[in-house]
Amino acid sequence: MTVEMKEKLTIVKVGGKIVEDAASLARLISDFSALEGYKLLVHGGGRTATEVAARLGVETQMVEGRRVTNAEMLEVVTMVYGGLVNKNVVAHLQACGVCALGLTGADVDVMRAHRRIGTTVDYGYVGDVDRVDGARLAMLIRSGIVPVMAPLTHDGAGTLLNTNADTIAGETAKALAEHFDVTLMYCFEHAGVLRDASCPDSVIPCIDKQAFQQLVADGVVSGGMIPKLQNCLAAIEAGVKRVVITKADAINTKNGTIIQ
Amino acid sequence: MTVEMKEKLTIVKVGGKIVEDAASLARLISDFSALEGYKLLVHGGGRTATEVAARLGVETQMVEGRRVTNAEMLEVVTMVYGGLVNKNVVAHLQACGVCALGLTGADVDVMRAHRRIGTTVDYGYVGDVDRVDGARLAMLIRSGIVPVMAPLTHDGAGTLLNTNADTIAGETAKALAEHFDVTLMYCFEHAGVLRDASCPDSVIPCIDKQAFQQLVADGVVSGGMIPKLQNCLAAIEAGVKRVVITKADAINTKNGTIIQ
Repeated sequence: MTVEMKEKLTIVKVGGKIVEDAASLARLISDFSALEGYKLLVHGGGRTATEVAARLGVETQMVEGRRVTNAEMLEVVTMVYGGLVNKNVVAHLQACGVCALGLTGADVDVMRAHRRIGTTVDYGYVGDVDRVDGARLAMLIRSGIVPVMAPLTHDGAGTLLNTNADTIAGETAKALAEHFDVTLMYCFEHAGVLRDASCPDSVIPCIDKQAFQQLVADGVVSGGMIPKLQNCLAAIEAGVKRVVITKADAINTKNGTIIQ
Repeated sequence: MTVEMKEKLTIVKVGGKIVEDAASLARLISDFSALEGYKLLVHGGGRTATEVAARLGVETQMVEGRRVTNAEMLEVVTMVYGGLVNKNVVAHLQACGVCALGLTGADVDVMRAHRRIGTTVDYGYVGDVDRVDGARLAMLIRSGIVPVMAPLTHDGAGTLLNTNADTIAGETAKALAEHFDVTLMYCFEHAGVLRDASCPDSVIPCIDKQAFQQLVADGVVSGGMIPKLQNCLAAIEAGVKRVVITKADAINTKNGTIIQ
């Protein structure tokens, strides 16, 4: 048996906070542009969506951290995620010589989803991902294109759907694991998963499945970090090489918490 | 000398009126999907931009039919053209099995422009096109992708620019003339250029350079139709095979005024 050497691909997911502030966006663009090899960016934009919605008189309703998306809110997120945030990131990356291409799930049918059903809350036009066209993405990436993905999918019947950016990043990483040696970097407010929430230096360097169970049992990991880490472990099980939880300004150091 | 047979490409430009109304959009999607061979769609969206701007408290100022685009209006058109209109058209085309890809000029650096200078009016963030990456577009089109272009360009230094959709269509057609046998269809409110404005049946079937000069001399063609036809003739001189001025619901009949 021969060992197939796959080329490296780095997928970086950044939240709205990073791309919506001029200074942190400039830093991200510079850091991301400097990343070597194949790469792909996934962004959020929730703060701007909430702000634009308010200016348009559309009420923002969040349930368990997720945005309830009625027809009016779908228009807002389509404008903000697919237009304002995505195209600004693309234009800034182009200025750094990165051949960025903005994508929603509808573009070249790259990510299909279905409207979430069967939960106690009606989230409206919110999509759970059915499939990612990894072959199409791989072809674009190999041609020198850097996809910049907005957190929007579509149902294949003409309707766009609002989909969590972490999910977009995770599903994209899984679909591309067949084609590349994938490192998935989730950027958030801390330098990694902290052993002690009050101590920013207490980053846990590495977590695997066993360590995760122990950390949960010990109460070190709790709340929203549990599903986040479960998603990271699921990505590893699906073939993603490593997942890194870190700060946006550390994407080039690769420091943070490594899940593998 | 051998005669090179180029493959056919149809470029359709539709104004905001068509893509902003549910019924006319549905008709367009159906007609455009049925068009055989390689194709590309360029859309406007000015009415929605004006409406969204008003809801956001951003004043719309038009000078000679062109939108003055300050920083706030640039955000509005980026949201509306690049997000709301573009992604809805893409999602609807996907539902008809068309592998649509939404593009602004910044995406894969497909269309660069510079901010308009030296006119008596400061139009703000309005771009005049410098170059279109015809080779990149041709590659995408040959891979089965149908580009859907929003009327936005970029300056290569991180700034998006508002660019007239007719211009986007014309410049794209010229850049692709090297790669394809291009038919450029401008859809507007009449079935073609009318000999008698009060008579919708008086469509002039064919106009060439000589006929154009005669029509202007006779006063049959006047006002805004003069620069429109000059642009069509310039496209023909640049190698576009034919330009058709017609109604959106006639794109499959290819009836209308043919400029060649």
